[in-house]
Amino acid sequence: MLNKKLILNLIGFLLIVEGIFMLIPAIVSIIYHENDLIPFLKSSAITISVGFILWIITRDVKRAVGKREGFIIVTMVWIIYSIFGSLPYILSGSIPSFTNAFFETMSGFTTTGASILNDIEILPHGILFWRSMTHLIGGMGILVLTVAILPFLGVGGMQLFNAEASGVTPDKLHPKMRETARRLWVIYIALVLIETIMLKFGGMDIFDALCHSFATLASGGFSTKNASVAAFSPYIQYVIIFFMIMAGTNFTLHYYLINGKFKKIFKNQEYKFYLLIILISTIIIAFFLIRTNATIEKSFRDALFQVTSIVTCTGFVTADYTSWAKFLWFFLFILMFVGGSVGSTAGGIKVLRHFLLFKNSITEFKRMLHPSAVIPVRYNGSVISNDIIFKVQAFFLTYIVIFITGSLFLTFFGMDFVSSMGAVVTTMGGIGPGLGSVGPVNNFALVPTEGKWILSFMMLIGRLELFSVLILLTPAFWKK
Amino acid sequence: MLNKKLILNLIGFLLIVEGIFMLIPAIVSIIYHENDLIPFLKSSAITISVGFILWIITRDVKRAVGKREGFIIVTMVWIIYSIFGSLPYILSGSIPSFTNAFFETMSGFTTTGASILNDIEILPHGILFWRSMTHLIGGMGILVLTVAILPFLGVGGMQLFNAEASGVTPDKLHPKMRETARRLWVIYIALVLIETIMLKFGGMDIFDALCHSFATLASGGFSTKNASVAAFSPYIQYVIIFFMIMAGTNFTLHYYLINGKFKKIFKNQEYKFYLLIILISTIIIAFFLIRTNATIEKSFRDALFQVTSIVTCTGFVTADYTSWAKFLWFFLFILMFVGGSVGSTAGGIKVLRHFLLFKNSITEFKRMLHPSAVIPVRYNGSVISNDIIFKVQAFFLTYIVIFITGSLFLTFFGMDFVSSMGAVVTTMGGIGPGLGSVGPVNNFALVPTEGKWILSFMMLIGRLELFSVLILLTPAFWKK
Repeated sequence: MLNKKLILNLIGFLLIVEGIFMLIPAIVSIIYHENDLIPFLKSSAITISVGFILWIITRDVKRAVGKREGFIIVTMVWIIYSIFGSLPYILSGSIPSFTNAFFETMSGFTTTGASILNDIEILPHGILFWRSMTHLIGGMGILVLTVAILPFLGVGGMQLFNAEASGVTPDKLHPKMRETARRLWVIYIALVLIETIMLKFGGMDIFDALCHSFATLASGGFSTKNASVAAFSPYIQYVIIFFMIMAGTNFTLHYYLINGKFKKIFKNQEYKFYLLIILISTIIIAFFLIRTNATIEKSFRDALFQVTSIVTCTGFVTADYTSWAKFLWFFLFILMFVGGSVGSTAGGIKVLRHFLLFKNSITEFKRMLHPSAVIPVRYNGSVISNDIIFKVQAFFLTYIVIFITGSLFLTFFGMDFVSSMGAVVTTMGGIGPGLGSVGPVNNFALVPTEGKWILSFMMLIGRLELFSVLILLTPAFWKK
Repeated sequence: MLNKKLILNLIGFLLIVEGIFMLIPAIVSIIYHENDLIPFLKSSAITISVGFILWIITRDVKRAVGKREGFIIVTMVWIIYSIFGSLPYILSGSIPSFTNAFFETMSGFTTTGASILNDIEILPHGILFWRSMTHLIGGMGILVLTVAILPFLGVGGMQLFNAEASGVTPDKLHPKMRETARRLWVIYIALVLIETIMLKFGGMDIFDALCHSFATLASGGFSTKNASVAAFSPYIQYVIIFFMIMAGTNFTLHYYLINGKFKKIFKNQEYKFYLLIILISTIIIAFFLIRTNATIEKSFRDALFQVTSIVTCTGFVTADYTSWAKFLWFFLFILMFVGGSVGSTAGGIKVLRHFLLFKNSITEFKRMLHPSAVIPVRYNGSVISNDIIFKVQAFFLTYIVIFITGSLFLTFFGMDFVSSMGAVVTTMGGIGPGLGSVGPVNNFALVPTEGKWILSFMMLIGRLELFSVLILLTPAFWKK
């Protein structure tokens, strides 16, 4: 029996939390004396009321949470947060259409950063702050999700991370989920504050600094400027590069850093592979940009910024990469499938999965030559069971199939080949800008309505590691 | 120790065979009194001489063939056959450039059907016959390869087919490899002859009928007309559709048909899935074509022909599908990843692999909900081991990675996004026409030289089920 009451009770509680969060941009409205105060108070009141009613009528719930309840809650929270989170946009008139407001909010909470806004700078500060806060809140949700919830639900080989985080191996971060979440959040908020100070130091005002820090550490990508990070100085761009890399790193490594366990960091194979991908891709792209760019520094910076922004699934922009050579943007298109590290706020397939499949394909050749020998894949010195590799393969394949299916649907609604593929890969990966008509100097405003809903779904499914959403669509899940 | 002598001895023997094959188009030259007789005699003499020398100096070889020798021979045969097979084109001046001649020959022997020829109809009959014969010979090679050799080498889950064909299961076709090959060839040649008669009956002359039958049963796609099969009547188009479907069917089923085992055919899940894919895709495409086409029959025929041509990896053309709605050619692009049945002459990923992955993904959801239960994937009533699914997943992933890498390289040499992807998917899958600048009304003549070599490699690697070629590139293979 599905414990529906528990689901509603938890959703109710989380809606109250969301409603309280909405009071923070209301304070920003007061500070800036802008006309979006009332919409925030209304949105907050509606959200808290609905949450409170849900919570109060399900008070007498049994606290036992099973797998099925877990799956439903995970998906529903993101959807319901996006529905209520779009209220400030709608009530303030900043984004009148529900489709657009929902897309923008889903893009925020999934830390994607794809936008339907043509002119960002025209919006009141409160609205912009809420927009950036959806990233911050989404990032917090993701950290708990990937470290504590998905491993429990057994999604896509995330047990591997579970093994590290839940105390099954000697590598344990901390055995208790609530304590783990608290520690991750402390690191996360601390990084946000450090970045804010460093951006402020580079001449950003405190508002922009906070908004960009929220978007960086959540690997989100919403900017307060139409030109994105191209609007700021090289110093600020380098600061953001540094924190994007931090955001795309497994947060367990930050914990090791604080505790002085440097050896554990430098021995981490995913971390090395992650940095190597960024380094090599930057060198390749910078090499080709030198021909057209004014200085070597600018070529290097543009390449490093764009590669980091895409690999960490942030989506900030400092250069219109679709005006680069075809080869270079095809290369960036491929990088959109990489994703950051497991246990980070980055989306996408994730470096660890690529690493395991890469190691497995080498091993597979050895197995072909010596069919009777047992040759396992190793990661950080431990043997990875074939069962994990199997699930990682299934994840990768499902990712490709959804990518293709999503692109097909977009072409059906009139988008061209390149834009469709670009739109789907960037939303599934939680990046932001895509290719073609949804490239870095464009936005998603002109995507047909059906396409916006498809892409909202892509953000959701990509963010929630595919299977947590897909399983809800199987008849087996609802049987009995 | 690698038995190099054995490899050379076998290659020598097979070159003699190829040289003898070249005498058949020489006869065509005599019949048509055209100027390509001498080039054929020269090509044949060179090929037989080289073969004979190799064979004679390695006479005293030990006959023990190991896995490593097997892998080397498989890849080398296709390359060396393409080198010597391009002699008639070069010596007759029909295709003066070696790059182009090699591309065309590799396209023939891999039964791809991608062409660099701008004007096919201008060529002498002997050359056209040789071009079609490379399909016929390639098809014969493929049947032996997939049924007997690759399962022995353990490539990409082909053991599954092995189980059916080599007598390990009660489902045995025939236990002995040589006998199996002979039976497949008899069926293959019989189908070629039946199609030839049926095409002749529809008004084709015997030359065109033979050439098109060679290209159909090999799932090749070389036509003797610039307009491909669009140059012929609806009756002929339907005949070719029927035989394309036969060519993309597991040849074991044809054997069952001859022996009256109809039950075994109708119970075959891959066969049903294969026909279902063709049927559903045809209905979808025909539904959209009706709006623009003159008659319903023409819409249905165009849709059925193009879907069948692509799914069976043949590559004949009756309509310029790149002029259809974006959605439709994206749909065809996806179909290019399907591939025909295992144990047919079709290339690509193959329906059975899709079927197994599809079944596994359903099973995977059940496993997520009930982690302790053992839920196997079944095919034709038998349990498929996870080891096979694992290899099939690895195959699929490798296919995607090679597809992406190949496309990236083509953009590097100046091709656009869509044409690059179209060119790689169509050559890897052994289809023929692609998208964009290599679409059905264009050809591969304008692809840059580097691109032609990359695509020749794509044909080879796709045809030989990836791993047989890739393994040669690993250091582990050459160690010791």
